[in-house]
Amino acid sequence: MTKILKDEDLVGGALMSIAIDALEAAFLAKACNRLISPPRHHVSFPDRGDLVFTVGGLMGEKPIAGFRVYDTFNGAEHTQIVAVWSADDAKLEGVILGERLGSLRTGAIGGLAIRHLGAPDARNIGIIGSGAQARTQLAAAAAVRNLDRARVYSRDETNRAAFASEMQQALGLDVEPVDSVSKAVDDADIVICATTSQTPVVHAGDLKPGVHVTTVGPKTLQGYELGLDVADAAAVIATDSLEQARAYASPFFLTGSGNDDRMADLADIIAGKAAGRRSSEEITLFCSVGLAGTEVVVASAILRSPALVLRGTSG
Amino acid sequence: MTKILKDEDLVGGALMSIAIDALEAAFLAKACNRLISPPRHHVSFPDRGDLVFTVGGLMGEKPIAGFRVYDTFNGAEHTQIVAVWSADDAKLEGVILGERLGSLRTGAIGGLAIRHLGAPDARNIGIIGSGAQARTQLAAAAAVRNLDRARVYSRDETNRAAFASEMQQALGLDVEPVDSVSKAVDDADIVICATTSQTPVVHAGDLKPGVHVTTVGPKTLQGYELGLDVADAAAVIATDSLEQARAYASPFFLTGSGNDDRMADLADIIAGKAAGRRSSEEITLFCSVGLAGTEVVVASAILRSPALVLRGTSG
Repeated sequence: MTKILKDEDLVGGALMSIAIDALEAAFLAKACNRLISPPRHHVSFPDRGDLVFTVGGLMGEKPIAGFRVYDTFNGAEHTQIVAVWSADDAKLEGVILGERLGSLRTGAIGGLAIRHLGAPDARNIGIIGSGAQARTQLAAAAAVRNLDRARVYSRDETNRAAFASEMQQALGLDVEPVDSVSKAVDDADIVICATTSQTPVVHAGDLKPGVHVTTVGPKTLQGYELGLDVADAAAVIATDSLEQARAYASPFFLTGSGNDDRMADLADIIAGKAAGRRSSEEITLFCSVGLAGTEVVVASAILRSPALVLRGTSG
Repeated sequence: MTKILKDEDLVGGALMSIAIDALEAAFLAKACNRLISPPRHHVSFPDRGDLVFTVGGLMGEKPIAGFRVYDTFNGAEHTQIVAVWSADDAKLEGVILGERLGSLRTGAIGGLAIRHLGAPDARNIGIIGSGAQARTQLAAAAAVRNLDRARVYSRDETNRAAFASEMQQALGLDVEPVDSVSKAVDDADIVICATTSQTPVVHAGDLKPGVHVTTVGPKTLQGYELGLDVADAAAVIATDSLEQARAYASPFFLTGSGNDDRMADLADIIAGKAAGRRSSEEITLFCSVGLAGTEVVVASAILRSPALVLRGTSG
């Protein structure tokens, strides 16, 4: 019986923790070369756009394999498909349709970075941006740290107010909209930058010692949301995929800054193969690129979760 | 609303005709380079097997795009996934899960070949083989010709008897199991060879003038089910994909026989760009290789068919 889940099935507070724990196992597997994550495969349809496939899998005792596909056609509705097989018995475990899994996955990777890089006693978080990525990054942070308060800034006052009331409700956390970047990040132990800005909106001078910063938005030399001085100030710079960061069409934003070579693989930090935070004063920086193949890992964990099975269409 | 169909939804007598008509449009499109059918894309999972993607699409006024994926993992259950988008508005039209679509597609291509190469007044059909492919090839032949009688031979008496009674019931056609190849094909206007035999089971001497022959089973120099003299005797030799026939790991069975260069693209014959049958005495031969990308075309036609929409899961 193949389970089929859609966006409306991917609800509930347990989901983010399930995703983060599944990704922790995947990143540990990556550190010992058991995560399968080949380059994306694009197929073009003339004048229409592409289908883009990212295949992924976890090898080991209970191997899983699968893929995500998304389209770049011209339209308002975009439905991704993620499918997962158990690779030892060829069983198709399930299919997840929609957009929610992708942002859940990216958020969960951010949460994993905070779990391993952020100060253990982080209480305050500042968020720049009020879109879907900002939402899942905040939810992920709340899943790994005992937060007291969040402050959100985005240029549009209505958007940041809506973000604050929605996330306060969803997370049971005090979320305050503020009217400047500095008000959002001044006192923050964790800063999430999740904008579409092509010019830096957060600079090192805005940040307090010991902060963990995640950049989710633009980060190529063509445009980047985070000041280069934040990388200069960071004791640890990590990413979820060195390969993908170095394969961007425009070079990665740290290229030529002297900090590019310091960038570590989050997987190696989690596995203890590379150094992470060493003091409560150090600044840590996580550059989120969206490690390919990890949607499959998250999908598998969700499909196997007893809490969610009953909601999906079985047949 | 994305439609999701499974094997149990793909039933009903109209299905084969829908598939054949959709493929006719696809082959016409292929003849003017509007069928998108790039090479298969294999991704390997160490010691486990591959996921294999075939992408396909039809460009034009109502463009469609999609893919099929299947696995080569070690297991009894194999569920293919076919997904279709309308490429002009990025809408995911639907997903079809299971094994039935693939054999329906291959059968329908055989039916299309018979429609364009077989004698218009063909009445008798001989089938060698009693598996899934033999079933759908016979169903497709019955959809394009007004058949009186079918005779089936396969080595296993039980299998051929089961095939005969099942197909007689399904098609409302006199289907007789026989105990030799020659009894099956002697008097046949159409011969379907759908075996797993690595050595020829049908020879030119077995066939009557005017016959159309389709070979579905092995057809490489390593092993082939059809005598090379059948190709010698054929006035027309066609295939659904010259490219795929020439890309087999072992060379195509006609390589070096002097007949390889005569092989025409079925699409060109349908479009009137290449010669088809010219008389009721000519023998025609169709080498079925399973043109990649056509599962998407068949899936789209099924998903759009009002007769089938109500059976599927919508949501």
